[in-house]
Amino acid sequence: MTKLLIDCDPGIDDALALALVAGSPSLELAGVTTVGGNVDLALTTANALALREFLHLGEVPVVPGSPGALLRNVIRADKVHGSSGLGNAVLPAATRPAGDGHAVDFIVETLRAAPGEITLVAIGPLTNIALAVRKEPRVVEWARDFVIMGGSYTRGNTNPAAEFNILADPEAAAIVFDAGWTVTMLGLDVTLTALVTTDVLDRLRPLGRLAEQLVVPAATAYGMVTADGGPAIHDACAIAYVLDPSLFTCVPAVVQVETAGRYTSGMTVTDFKLRDRRPNALVATSLDVKRFWDLVLDAYTRLAAGLG
Amino acid sequence: MTKLLIDCDPGIDDALALALVAGSPSLELAGVTTVGGNVDLALTTANALALREFLHLGEVPVVPGSPGALLRNVIRADKVHGSSGLGNAVLPAATRPAGDGHAVDFIVETLRAAPGEITLVAIGPLTNIALAVRKEPRVVEWARDFVIMGGSYTRGNTNPAAEFNILADPEAAAIVFDAGWTVTMLGLDVTLTALVTTDVLDRLRPLGRLAEQLVVPAATAYGMVTADGGPAIHDACAIAYVLDPSLFTCVPAVVQVETAGRYTSGMTVTDFKLRDRRPNALVATSLDVKRFWDLVLDAYTRLAAGLG
Amino acid sequence: MTKLLIDCDPGIDDALALALVAGSPSLELAGVTTVGGNVDLALTTANALALREFLHLGEVPVVPGSPGALLRNVIRADKVHGSSGLGNAVLPAATRPAGDGHAVDFIVETLRAAPGEITLVAIGPLTNIALAVRKEPRVVEWARDFVIMGGSYTRGNTNPAAEFNILADPEAAAIVFDAGWTVTMLGLDVTLTALVTTDVLDRLRPLGRLAEQLVVPAATAYGMVTADGGPAIHDACAIAYVLDPSLFTCVPAVVQVETAGRYTSGMTVTDFKLRDRRPNALVATSLDVKRFWDLVLDAYTRLAAGLG
Amino acid sequence: MTKLLIDCDPGIDDALALALVAGSPSLELAGVTTVGGNVDLALTTANALALREFLHLGEVPVVPGSPGALLRNVIRADKVHGSSGLGNAVLPAATRPAGDGHAVDFIVETLRAAPGEITLVAIGPLTNIALAVRKEPRVVEWARDFVIMGGSYTRGNTNPAAEFNILADPEAAAIVFDAGWTVTMLGLDVTLTALVTTDVLDRLRPLGRLAEQLVVPAATAYGMVTADGGPAIHDACAIAYVLDPSLFTCVPAVVQVETAGRYTSGMTVTDFKLRDRRPNALVATSLDVKRFWDLVLDAYTRLAAGLG
Repeated sequence: MTKLLIDCDPGIDDALALALVAGSPSLELAGVTTVGGNVDLALTTANALALREFLHLGEVPVVPGSPGALLRNVIRADKVHGSSGLGNAVLPAATRPAGDGHAVDFIVETLRAAPGEITLVAIGPLTNIALAVRKEPRVVEWARDFVIMGGSYTRGNTNPAAEFNILADPEAAAIVFDAGWTVTMLGLDVTLTALVTTDVLDRLRPLGRLAEQLVVPAATAYGMVTADGGPAIHDACAIAYVLDPSLFTCVPAVVQVETAGRYTSGMTVTDFKLRDRRPNALVATSLDVKRFWDLVLDAYTRLAAGLG
Repeated sequence: MTKLLIDCDPGIDDALALALVAGSPSLELAGVTTVGGNVDLALTTANALALREFLHLGEVPVVPGSPGALLRNVIRADKVHGSSGLGNAVLPAATRPAGDGHAVDFIVETLRAAPGEITLVAIGPLTNIALAVRKEPRVVEWARDFVIMGGSYTRGNTNPAAEFNILADPEAAAIVFDAGWTVTMLGLDVTLTALVTTDVLDRLRPLGRLAEQLVVPAATAYGMVTADGGPAIHDACAIAYVLDPSLFTCVPAVVQVETAGRYTSGMTVTDFKLRDRRPNALVATSLDVKRFWDLVLDAYTRLAAGLG
Repeated sequence: MTKLLIDCDPGIDDALALALVAGSPSLELAGVTTVGGNVDLALTTANALALREFLHLGEVPVVPGSPGALLRNVIRADKVHGSSGLGNAVLPAATRPAGDGHAVDFIVETLRAAPGEITLVAIGPLTNIALAVRKEPRVVEWARDFVIMGGSYTRGNTNPAAEFNILADPEAAAIVFDAGWTVTMLGLDVTLTALVTTDVLDRLRPLGRLAEQLVVPAATAYGMVTADGGPAIHDACAIAYVLDPSLFTCVPAVVQVETAGRYTSGMTVTDFKLRDRRPNALVATSLDVKRFWDLVLDAYTRLAAGLG
Repeated sequence: MTKLLIDCDPGIDDALALALVAGSPSLELAGVTTVGGNVDLALTTANALALREFLHLGEVPVVPGSPGALLRNVIRADKVHGSSGLGNAVLPAATRPAGDGHAVDFIVETLRAAPGEITLVAIGPLTNIALAVRKEPRVVEWARDFVIMGGSYTRGNTNPAAEFNILADPEAAAIVFDAGWTVTMLGLDVTLTALVTTDVLDRLRPLGRLAEQLVVPAATAYGMVTADGGPAIHDACAIAYVLDPSLFTCVPAVVQVETAGRYTSGMTVTDFKLRDRRPNALVATSLDVKRFWDLVLDAYTRLAAGLG
């Protein structure tokens, strides 16, 4: 049983990641915190709340956090995620409210309460995590593991140098990578291989309400599905990693986040030549795509059975 | 009666600022929060606790906050403030402990509890204030006024471009100046005129224990006292401003904090030509030095009478 | 007899500087090179040519150079200098053409031909000088002295951090200050004290054609003339320095040109604390204004006698 | 017949590139200019002169240029190219001297003399080209084509973000890419596929003196030769492109050179999404490796016949 705390900005692929959690009995979700990212905080929080109910996530707390970046103006990805943040998926509005307090405190207190037990997973901009690290540096020791979807060691997506989650708050990412722990970084290098192809879609379609109301309309919203291409479900990779790290090849590296560049701010500059430096990251360099989809489909099938 | 919340890093001139508070019956101190700055957080907190007792500040909470800057490595000013942080002053160690919790939460909650009533005064690096602003953007509305000692519109002190408090955390300063309120900035431009000269020293010496144990050894620790020169008591200017803004000439300006420069990070780039821009700062351009010392001496005399 | 090579961008105060040369029998002008600056290169060159004839500068070569900065987009100061570049002065168009070749080569070859003899004076953006230094690093040794009007150790003019000549090409300035020689820097700190007040104006007016056609309409074009204020004739300070360095207090300093700042590019960051570093600049900190105007008026009177 | 002007810093792969020129009767070499790069300017010039004689390049001028970068400190690649710059190859010292004048002038005058006729090829740091562009902006129109070996749209070699030739002078590269022409950029993305494998080596060995004295000791100096790996002969790709552009797939792009980054200076940030922007580069994205080696071997065989 792995305990999980997820900081997210749903977001289509965040929704697919949460669905993966919901269908994985070996995961115990300690909480969901939200951050402004793909869409505004109000919407990422509303989506997280709606997903909690739709996915039968139970009483897990959903706690909102930072609306925008530490220093920069807000960038959004609503062209990708639609104005609702969930593409073409339309979920019933949540009936239960968000938790009191602030995501930063929730992260700090949840980790403090169970040192060494909880894996922290961040699949949005790293603003909340950076604030938590600065407010209570010991979160770095308390987290059992820290896994992000973000960055790239080759090219970006929002621009040639930077991936969206890091570009949305480069200073937060710099704080987080420099905090003393080892960041497991699942970047575009691998997540862009986790594509919803026609084959994948054929396996998703039969999954009842889960498919109809969430997975299919979400997954097909941003990108054409073809035999060998389709939209990437980036964030689900982070959950898949927690479920089975052996799906990925991960290489120790020194990752430095550029914050001063004219064209490169938000780039995760990744040096695999360690020389005498301590690696601050484990960077995923390949994904076993077939086994990834098997794992996802198993979980979704299990979940779908419960949802009807 | 003006209510005050002070974020500080004692620090010699922080001590002299707190003494000014202690001797000013028109001020009501809602709390003292500490930040790593002139010396380490452990020491700034210990000094704040010792000062609370020595200055008879009563039950005012002292709450520790951030040990270092948001993004940068720590810089310290212990060459100026001595290894204790209080120059040659040696105060009895505090007998009562610091408050629970974190300065950032204390700032947020104190302002939330009395919107429009409390003047926030920051006389150290702006890390706590920046974190408070990012965690709860409404502090900007809740603060009655926001006054800092920091920056300069001409030259720096730690280096040619930057003043210590801003250089110690440029990104925090950038957040704070960009937060939507109007920052009253008392920079080196005026604080370097608030000098402890031989005349001033002659007026300070007769003040009993206050003079012997704190004010004189602190004030004379960092700089030669001469007829027309001497150490500046920067931070006391911020309290003096709260007591009597008419001591200062203040000019509306747009202040931008440089965070990207090779030689200029931490500079408060101050544009007095507003054009169509909203000023984000009131920048002090002159101090009535004579009236300043009269006000300080009055308060110290009042305080000394109580301390014996 | 001091030999002089002047790189300039006339420009009102460039014109007044050239007039000072023309009226100073102790100066021998080896050449005038032009650079795009206050106005476009075509205009700075046309103005230099017109001034050569109007000021009876004889056969001194006028050679055009760089139209714009090494890396940056062009900024111009035509709001200050008028669309002609000479304010309200209207000179007869030149009858003789510019010299062949390029300013950079002219600078290199002129200095090469008389090592140790020629004082290089730059009163515009430093593009030509930087290119000369990069093309032939020995110009640094060949120049007898190198004097610029540019920069500031306090505040800028075009923006709060930067003076126009440096801001117009920060990378060129960085090359020039880093070239190994000692730059005599006459910045805004002193040039803003060389003001055309009503008193000065009263002394200029009687100077016949020189006054009527050039000095008065130029000097009064950009700024109100009052009893204790008026337009500064920045560039003339550089010539005055060559004529009589004792007019200025100059202090050794390490000057670094910021090229990476968001708000501070083009700032001449001036550190008077040398520690163990070799000073790369002699920075003027004060000007004897009375003696300055005496020197200028003497020269202008001498020149006016010749011009009729 | 294609006329060629090559700016280079021999350098092992520069030598192999010049050999390719020497063996290609369809190329007419208008000149070779040198720049400090892989090794010091004195050495790159000496090597170019030695190669001119060893490769029977005839009376083609060899003109030295810039020793170092416009703004940055020198970086060298002598760990790769050996202290001589030619790996283990030892050529007879040249008997004829370099041409008079400076590379920058030679480039300007050679292009001016034959507008539209000469392809400019730069296979070292871009310092000379940048200075030529700034001294005479019309070189951009006069060059028939402009081809560089340099940069990358994925990862660097000297560090994770930057390729050596660009990192060695980022500001020069920024000038060159921004000059108004279309730069054909053959970066690491393709040159790292032009590897000297054991198969290639087997074809090179029989080439007499050319193989023994230059090609084999040079090519094997920096990297282990295996069946499917080996040292890349980067610079030869630029000549191969001139000989047969169809060897490469080239895609229009907007390339911006980072000069402000903390970890990314010298990166060629390459955006293939043009939107409404004019592409300033044709970026090679693939090389037909087999045909490349056939072309190189043909030329070397032809050359070897002449050298004995």
